[in-house]
Formats: sequence, C-alpha cells, structure tokens
Amino acid sequence: MIGIFDSGVGGMTVARAIEELLPAAPLLYLGDIARSPYGSKSAPTIIDYSIENTRFLVDNGAQVIVIACNSAASVASERLRQEFHLPIIDVIVPAVAEAVRGSRSGRIGVIGTRATIQSGIYEREICREDPTCRVFSQACPLLVPLVEEGWGDRRETKMILRRYLHPLQNQQIDTLVLGCTHYPLLSDLIQPRIGRRVRLIDSSRATASHLRQQLADRPALLARPGHQPADNRYHVTDCTETASQIAQRIFARPITLLPV
Amino acid sequence: MIGIFDSGVGGMTVARAIEELLPAAPLLYLGDIARSPYGSKSAPTIIDYSIENTRFLVDNGAQVIVIACNSAASVASERLRQEFHLPIIDVIVPAVAEAVRGSRSGRIGVIGTRATIQSGIYEREICREDPTCRVFSQACPLLVPLVEEGWGDRRETKMILRRYLHPLQNQQIDTLVLGCTHYPLLSDLIQPRIGRRVRLIDSSRATASHLRQQLADRPALLARPGHQPADNRYHVTDCTETASQIAQRIFARPITLLPV
Repeated sequence: MIGIFDSGVGGMTVARAIEELLPAAPLLYLGDIARSPYGSKSAPTIIDYSIENTRFLVDNGAQVIVIACNSAASVASERLRQEFHLPIIDVIVPAVAEAVRGSRSGRIGVIGTRATIQSGIYEREICREDPTCRVFSQACPLLVPLVEEGWGDRRETKMILRRYLHPLQNQQIDTLVLGCTHYPLLSDLIQPRIGRRVRLIDSSRATASHLRQQLADRPALLARPGHQPADNRYHVTDCTETASQIAQRIFARPITLLPV
Repeated sequence: MIGIFDSGVGGMTVARAIEELLPAAPLLYLGDIARSPYGSKSAPTIIDYSIENTRFLVDNGAQVIVIACNSAASVASERLRQEFHLPIIDVIVPAVAEAVRGSRSGRIGVIGTRATIQSGIYEREICREDPTCRVFSQACPLLVPLVEEGWGDRRETKMILRRYLHPLQNQQIDTLVLGCTHYPLLSDLIQPRIGRRVRLIDSSRATASHLRQQLADRPALLARPGHQPADNRYHVTDCTETASQIAQRIFARPITLLPV
C-alpha cells in the first residue's frame, strides 16, 4: 500500500495524480487538518507532525511513503528517512528534476509557503542537479487560505497573485515550480500572469510519475488485482465541511473523509 | 494569576487590554500557534485543544481563565466550565453586553471566523440579553491570515473587507461586534467601510473591564505588589518569526515568547 500524507487536503492533488497514473495501486491518505496549515509553522514542529503522520501510515500498512506536502518535504524528508526504513518519496525531488530538465535558460522560479521558501530546499536541490541554474523564490502565504476559501476566480486573488508574481516577472524565468500542492488549483490564474512562455511545474504529476519509476521493481505495490481508486482510503485528523468540499473539487467525485 | 489562552497571537489584544486596565495583575498567556488557526476547525477539535490549553494554565498556577479566542469561546466555554472549577471568562459575554447596552436600534452586526459564526453563539447570547434585538452575522475567514501577514493597509485587504461587509451594509445596523481578537487590528479599515455611525465593539477592552468587575471581590488576583506588565509570561506552542513580529506590534514593546 502507498501511504501519502499532507497537512490537509492540498496533498489530494498528488493523490489524484497517483490515482490517474496508477489506478490499481492501493492508497492510504492522511490529511492533518486538525493542525493545518504547516506552511506558517516552525521546522521543529513540522518535523514532529511529519513523524507522527508517517507512523500512522506505517502502522496502517503503508510500505512506501509519499510526502505530499511541500512544507513537510522541505524540512522533514531527511529526518523521516532516518527514522523509517522504507522508501520515502517527496514532492520536491521530482519537481526539481522536471524543472531542470525542461529549463533552457536555467532561470527557474519557485513559489511556495513561507516554511518551504525559508528552508531554501528548492535552491539547494536545483543547484545540486545543475549548478549553472539560477533560482528565484517567492513565498506566497495567502494563496493557501484563498484556495481553501474557494476564491480561485475572485478579483482579489488575481490582485494578490499579481503582487506575489511581480518580483519574478523581471527575472526572465522560463520555468516556474508550483512548490505547494494547493497551487495547481490556481494554475489557470498563474499562467497568464507569469506569461504564456513560462512552463509551470505541477509537482503532483511529477511525483506520480517519479513514484512509478521508483517502484518499477516492486510491481505488487503499484497494482493489486481488482483494486480501484474508489477503494482508496482518505483519513483526516479533523473533519470539516470545507475539507469535504475541497476534496470533492479535487477528485470530481464524492470522497468520504474518514477519522483517524 | 490570570491565565489567558488563544489559538495564537490574536488573543494578545485581550492580554494587552488587561495589562492596560490591570497593570499589577500577573498574567500567564498561552498561544497555541502549533495548531493555529482554530477558526477553520471543527467544534470537537477546538474543544479538545481548549481543555489542553486550560490544563496547562491551571497547572502553571492560573486561578482564573480568560478564553481570549472567539472560536474557542464559541464552542468550548460550557465544556471548560464543566471540567474546571474556577472562574472562566470569555470574550463573548462582555462584548454582547456592551453591544446590547449601546445599540439604540437593536440591529447588531457580528463578524468572526467560520467556527464562531457557524456556532450561532452571538445570536443566542444577544437574544438572551435582549430578545428584541436582531443579529446579522458574517464569517470573514480571510481576515486572520491577512492580519497575520501584516497586510492591514493593503488595497487587497480593503477590497476583501468591502466584500465581507457588503451584506451587513444594507441592514441598518448601529453596532458591529468584532468577534475575533485579530479584528481590532483592522478597525481603522472596518470603521470607514461599515460607516462612521456604526459603533465597533472591541471584545478585548470589554473583556478586560468585565474581568475587573468579576474579580472585584478577589483583589489579590487583580494586583500583586510590585508586579509590572513586563513580568507577565507569554508562552507559545510554536515559536515563529511572524508570531514575534505580531506580538511586538500588539504590545509596542519587545515580547519574549516562551516555549511550553
């Protein structure tokens, strides 16, 4: 079974991408809504939460872990790999690989929560992959609450996005990493604002295909006979109406959110 | 000692009001930043957190509890009064009393987080105080993140406020309760938008004077010889830079945030 965790419902964009690419893979999701969001919290706190989440998934049968939260992946990946001896895949490495592979100018933008941007993880990972790249980062702390309010098409959201993207617009980037799992829900707004010639990297899709590659030698994890996406289990630490609505919007089907 | 808790730093507006009115009263504050915000979470989760917070304050010597968080007060006051046998004061009752006393038309507006507004507590409390009153409520979920970002004077914040306040503007209210401890930080924006003739009720000041009245017969709680506001202890469950900045803005002095 593939275990996935996120601070809330944003990581369901990753789960959906995995469902699309690997429909026969059994998924177990944990959204830590009771302590969400992570992006505004300190690294030690995010690490503690990530360990607890991973333990829940492992105790419930997960054999591989997907950290579907950029904030958690930014500060807790290394620690989780020390604590848990099973494959741990995060949303950052696949997005970085895709960004570096696709960028011609080597000028790459990254947007994310405050925790993600402050960690500097994207700069480090991109420069490790290709030291000639230049990375331009921008924290966009209000985008998560705006998405969670369902304000994706509001004028105020467009204005706030314009303000956040402005510093990146003068940097001639040709690639922009959406470094938060909520942001793909805003890509229709981001693309025209950052420019049509800038390629957006949606880490959810990159992560799903990275997962498939990484587990190619363990086909039993990627497919269980007769398994269907509707059999996947979506757990949350707090069950709110807003969360149910966002889940339904992401999957375009009714999702039963289960308690932990 | 007076124990005060909030989901984060917003309740410091209440603590500051108490410091101003009762400078010799020893305060112990707990801001649950690690699980903040509460306003988007479910009632059972908020109740659990409120019990834990109160236990921390009691274990550290608090003899009276101030629930300085509207979301917690909305759903957890009753339960805390069952569990803990000491005076528990919340931010709602004093604000309601002041609103009802001051309103001439009996048409009262309330703004707050989703948890507060969905609980219906202000309608119930206002109508209990005066059944002829009419209450018009509006959830404003984005205001807390906007305040926490320090966006109080941005154009986007003004537009979002206008959108939230619009449904109240046609209701001929003469009183508006700021039903969230973050909102007094926005009163300069709210006042011109809702209209100069509408009286804003800042629950932090109302709570401080209610506390003084309630404890009039226990003067030892309200003043300890030689005690100064600088001796008060401000604890947080997570220590972030943003929290320190907001704390300093609220108190207009450096505040050391202590771990729990």
